[in-house]
Amino acid sequence: MSEHKFKYVGTRPIRHDGVDKVTGRADFGADFSLPGMIYAACARSPHAHARILSIDTSKAEALAGVCAVITGKDLPEVPSFWNGTVEQGLDFGELADRIIARDKALFHGHPVAAVAAVSEHVAREACKLIDVEYEVLKPVMTIDDALADDAPILHPDQEPLGFDPKPEKPSNNARRISFQRGNLEEGFDAADIVVEREFETVMVHQGYIEPHACVVRSNEDGRIVIWCSTQGPFLVQLFSALVLGMDPASIKVIPSEIGGGFGGKTTIYLEPLAIVLSRKAGRPVKMVMSREEVFRATGPNSGAKVTLRLGAKSDGTLVAADTQMWFEAGAYRGSPVGGACMTIFGTYRIPHFSIEGFDVVLNKPQVAAYRAPGAPIGNFAIEQCMDELALELGIDPIELRLRNAVVEGDHAPYGPAYQAIGLRETLQAAKNHPHYKAPLAENQGRGVACGFWFNAGLQSSAIVGLNSDGSAIVRTGNPDIGGSRVSMAIMAAEELGIPVERIRPTVGDTDSIGYGDLTGGSRVTYATGMAVIQAAQDVIEQLRARAAMIWDVDVEDVVWKDGATVGTNGASDKDPLSLAELAGQMADTGGPIMGRASVNAATAGPAFATHLCDLEVDQETGRSKVVRYTTIQDAGRAIHPGYVEGQFQGGAAQGIGWALNEEYLWDEDGAVDNASFLDYRIPVASDLPMIDTVIVEVPSSGHPYGIRGVGEVPIVPPLATVANAMHDATGIRFDQLPLSPPRVLDAIEKRQS
Amino acid sequence: MSEHKFKYVGTRPIRHDGVDKVTGRADFGADFSLPGMIYAACARSPHAHARILSIDTSKAEALAGVCAVITGKDLPEVPSFWNGTVEQGLDFGELADRIIARDKALFHGHPVAAVAAVSEHVAREACKLIDVEYEVLKPVMTIDDALADDAPILHPDQEPLGFDPKPEKPSNNARRISFQRGNLEEGFDAADIVVEREFETVMVHQGYIEPHACVVRSNEDGRIVIWCSTQGPFLVQLFSALVLGMDPASIKVIPSEIGGGFGGKTTIYLEPLAIVLSRKAGRPVKMVMSREEVFRATGPNSGAKVTLRLGAKSDGTLVAADTQMWFEAGAYRGSPVGGACMTIFGTYRIPHFSIEGFDVVLNKPQVAAYRAPGAPIGNFAIEQCMDELALELGIDPIELRLRNAVVEGDHAPYGPAYQAIGLRETLQAAKNHPHYKAPLAENQGRGVACGFWFNAGLQSSAIVGLNSDGSAIVRTGNPDIGGSRVSMAIMAAEELGIPVERIRPTVGDTDSIGYGDLTGGSRVTYATGMAVIQAAQDVIEQLRARAAMIWDVDVEDVVWKDGATVGTNGASDKDPLSLAELAGQMADTGGPIMGRASVNAATAGPAFATHLCDLEVDQETGRSKVVRYTTIQDAGRAIHPGYVEGQFQGGAAQGIGWALNEEYLWDEDGAVDNASFLDYRIPVASDLPMIDTVIVEVPSSGHPYGIRGVGEVPIVPPLATVANAMHDATGIRFDQLPLSPPRVLDAIEKRQS
Repeated sequence: MSEHKFKYVGTRPIRHDGVDKVTGRADFGADFSLPGMIYAACARSPHAHARILSIDTSKAEALAGVCAVITGKDLPEVPSFWNGTVEQGLDFGELADRIIARDKALFHGHPVAAVAAVSEHVAREACKLIDVEYEVLKPVMTIDDALADDAPILHPDQEPLGFDPKPEKPSNNARRISFQRGNLEEGFDAADIVVEREFETVMVHQGYIEPHACVVRSNEDGRIVIWCSTQGPFLVQLFSALVLGMDPASIKVIPSEIGGGFGGKTTIYLEPLAIVLSRKAGRPVKMVMSREEVFRATGPNSGAKVTLRLGAKSDGTLVAADTQMWFEAGAYRGSPVGGACMTIFGTYRIPHFSIEGFDVVLNKPQVAAYRAPGAPIGNFAIEQCMDELALELGIDPIELRLRNAVVEGDHAPYGPAYQAIGLRETLQAAKNHPHYKAPLAENQGRGVACGFWFNAGLQSSAIVGLNSDGSAIVRTGNPDIGGSRVSMAIMAAEELGIPVERIRPTVGDTDSIGYGDLTGGSRVTYATGMAVIQAAQDVIEQLRARAAMIWDVDVEDVVWKDGATVGTNGASDKDPLSLAELAGQMADTGGPIMGRASVNAATAGPAFATHLCDLEVDQETGRSKVVRYTTIQDAGRAIHPGYVEGQFQGGAAQGIGWALNEEYLWDEDGAVDNASFLDYRIPVASDLPMIDTVIVEVPSSGHPYGIRGVGEVPIVPPLATVANAMHDATGIRFDQLPLSPPRVLDAIEKRQS
Repeated sequence: MSEHKFKYVGTRPIRHDGVDKVTGRADFGADFSLPGMIYAACARSPHAHARILSIDTSKAEALAGVCAVITGKDLPEVPSFWNGTVEQGLDFGELADRIIARDKALFHGHPVAAVAAVSEHVAREACKLIDVEYEVLKPVMTIDDALADDAPILHPDQEPLGFDPKPEKPSNNARRISFQRGNLEEGFDAADIVVEREFETVMVHQGYIEPHACVVRSNEDGRIVIWCSTQGPFLVQLFSALVLGMDPASIKVIPSEIGGGFGGKTTIYLEPLAIVLSRKAGRPVKMVMSREEVFRATGPNSGAKVTLRLGAKSDGTLVAADTQMWFEAGAYRGSPVGGACMTIFGTYRIPHFSIEGFDVVLNKPQVAAYRAPGAPIGNFAIEQCMDELALELGIDPIELRLRNAVVEGDHAPYGPAYQAIGLRETLQAAKNHPHYKAPLAENQGRGVACGFWFNAGLQSSAIVGLNSDGSAIVRTGNPDIGGSRVSMAIMAAEELGIPVERIRPTVGDTDSIGYGDLTGGSRVTYATGMAVIQAAQDVIEQLRARAAMIWDVDVEDVVWKDGATVGTNGASDKDPLSLAELAGQMADTGGPIMGRASVNAATAGPAFATHLCDLEVDQETGRSKVVRYTTIQDAGRAIHPGYVEGQFQGGAAQGIGWALNEEYLWDEDGAVDNASFLDYRIPVASDLPMIDTVIVEVPSSGHPYGIRGVGEVPIVPPLATVANAMHDATGIRFDQLPLSPPRVLDAIEKRQS
């Protein structure tokens, strides 16, 4: 890495899509329209758990302006071979059933029918006219209820995965995941001190601003065009095709701009219904969720129960750890408990540990990915126990973490050894940061916590094309959520040696660019960036050949330097040819030049962060306020520092909201009671201080520029950081989230009495 | 070529864009809309030649609903460096002046101002409110008037090109082109017979069904997006940028579907005006021409005057030829006289010749390209003289042509030697065709003529991407006029060994694909096809490497055969891996696979045709009817025979219309008198018999599949073929077009008296 002298990497140019986005011109999921387009809506189950006895759509069909009505019967039977076929972490049988209920409604808001009509209003009115006869069943709403012996079983014929021996009777405990190292007993025997705790977190939503939306056109020849807001157009193509038993090649997906996803837009909800409605009505169909539908029927993050036992020597050296985690999966398998298992002990050297995770189905919406899926929940447990150890042993909490922090060569709990990583560097930076030394006022407390996320690599494709005027295009298949267009342009600019402004980065649809995995897993700048760099180098190889032709020399005697071809050896007498000069001569030297590259980045650079939080607690009301917050994270290499900082701040803000206020409230029938941004409280600007950021750069060895994904780690430490600050401010250790005023006040009063 | 055994080439699959086009779903230039879009129209000069003294737009600006009004003053001064800079055959100074008149209106319909308003109606009303003070000048409407000593000079300060010595005074004779071979005097001295004639053709329009249309959005950051109907998106990008003094990289052009172009959509008319209006109004602007505007103010083909002297031996061997051609350029330089000079003697061996062509400016709309630009006019002269020679010498007209026909190794009039060509093969096929032997009824005559077009190669880019389901995408930058999507898919299918239906061909915008020259010059199937084939081979190279990895063998031991990798030598024990199998494993073998290629096809395979026409003439009315027509042409290799035949038939139909009925009628003020499809008569289905086609295949040596462009040659012979048939039916040699009933009747009556 060191030999790299960067010209554009590390600068902060304006993003190419910036003006369109601040002026409201950018087209998001609901902004697209087609001639003759009609509007669709879903009829949803008013029960969290019910058998569907009959559906009568005749009244709805009779309503003026209704073009098509469908139920589960209008979709293909879930092919048996799907059941159990988990692709991209998804069981397609369950996906198909979740899109629209067949025999059973499994959560409040579960679609049971859909209507397309001349207006959204008519469509929603028609939904009310659909008569569904239900046999209401007892909803299973908590992990304890779900695991109770007499619990109603959501999927009686589903075989739980990962249990050995296989359970003899059906269960809501759908999957078991585990990692072990060393010998637990031995480990705890060697411990001078053991902390044992139990924690609970509740279901929270990603809170993306843009609701799910799509426009779908079914052509006469059976081809489908989908315009939608998604983190992965190729994933929408594959999932929609599988749910409908179609050939993916017959579906074209055009990703719109995306107004936030945070993992919540890595699956589908509306598209297959819109396809079937469009086919039936013979018109293009627009389908847009209301905010209420987003809360009731899209995938939030799991609520969870975590038990943790942590043993250490008196000098603070960790010797053993044991955890069990139960995650709410919602109505179908697929909670992020795996992510929690992979990360909970990923930050520290622990010679002996046991990790066990369970995926529990219950009558809530099926959870979806949410920024570093699972990790913040495990982190909430481990980092509070670390805080407690530090207090009991009288060791500075950063010092304690430094003593145990993993370094290059240490193994992750899930196996592989870490390459170069920057955990210690973030701890050192935290220790030396003015924030850590600043005095605290009355009723204020300070918390510290570290966080870890492994990051994804996966598949990406990129094209770089040269224009005769010396400008260039960059095309990838990844929707731009956090500024990836400009990041791709910066990397292409770095290779080609032309200004970022002369590069036009675009996001392709599934017909116009090679396969690319989704925008998620903090992978785009890393893996798609790699593809862009390689595609630019492919262009440069062709430029060298053109220069060799122009100079009539061996291509070996032409090197690329500072955006120009330079002659060496036999060609050292030649004047360098700039990219612009070579581009201008493309026509005469063999035609246009395009570079292409595709990668499957096996591993992404794992990333670590240390967070500091000062919290002030009002002893009268229990209301707490974050007065200072600092995120310190290893970015490997910041391509566009402005957007790296934005990721640090955004993740911390979401984590703080999760820690202090966010929670789904349920009524006794299993319906969400606070399905609006008024009643479900995410932090707004006035709730937070300016979040301070420190970018640490320990280059990742897997990437030519040393990049690490930065999008997810920032949400990992805040839950524990805030809880530790709360303990410092109140002396109370909270084992449940959120740390909302009622809970805090209640605890303060209990302590006083 | 011979070793090729084709599986998909030569088949007739349904074009991918077929259903959309027959159901009216395809989006053409006027079908695109944007939120907040407004509508623009042009105020046009009511005089063919006038000095603009003043323009008062105040009344128009005051009209309710008007958003912006512009005149030539709102466009940048024509940068001096442009004058004379002829790029892509275009003088940009003149282009800018033609887009909107500055000091002088040079043709009836010349834009003098433009208005954007809330509706097209309001915009057109506002145009009527613009007061323009003109000093009317005498319009120059014929070649003779233009070249007269006292002729008003359209461009007094423009220096005529190609004259030696330079003319001492300004002239409307703007350019001279010439080719010579041998010694003319010597040639004619050796002739036993000399035919000398003078011919005249009139201005005709391409008659594309879709009028020019665009939607333009000027973004706050100065970037421009243009959606328009064009044969060349990159050309719209470059031309618009030059006219407005912008950086081409700041303009993105999205080509719509195109409803015919025939060369007429290889330049721009509306785009720069729409850009300036959009910038001024801050809204997207739609601009659509009416049919009348298309006739009055877009580029038709030249009217021309041709003198020809042709000498031969008594055995029919040609010995000398001498021609002078004057072409109407319209208000600015740039007639297709060059095309006529290159082709008029391209069909026959002529040891001694002189060709001289002149580009004459006059007060008519500037001409544009029209299918084989210039060639039909020269052909009209040479092929009638050949017919006359045959008659005078008593040699069968096909036999006479066979004796003189060029073959491989003969040189084209413009220099290079022909490689493998198929002129003789088309003549032989004509001779043996039942049509040539069929008896003629009373008042019927038969004509034969040959035609030649050199075809273009130029630059093309293509991307081929593989999907994990074994389907593929093909992306190019060429708007699909004549079925090129399916032709590209056929060639990719041939290389990859997967069905055409599994390939999705798409047309990119200027931000999403490497540079590509326009769809024209019969170059797309040839040159862009070459790029597609190479891009597919790039994919195959990667597939071989993947198979080598999977088998753990040398890539040299992996060959591609019948859509699969097959092991040889060290790998001969391996079972072949199909493309689908390899595609399914892409993720595990290094990620997605994309192929890319760009070409600059220096030469395209020159193409020749022989046409036969039976014409029946009503001696009472002079009305003639084509009763049988056969086109025989060398296609090199027909990728999709259905669309090759379509090109043969379409070109012949246009040529027949040109020969029999089409002409601009002008009033004394230089205004077009018949600016509608009612008064300007192009042939309709009921005017024509089913046109018979014979595809001859003499593979072109320049293309891996032996393709030759086929789009333009079919319009070259019909003018002379019909005229020769007319002579055979009436005994009258017509030297003027069109052969309309009045002219024919008049000639018949003259003959009788």
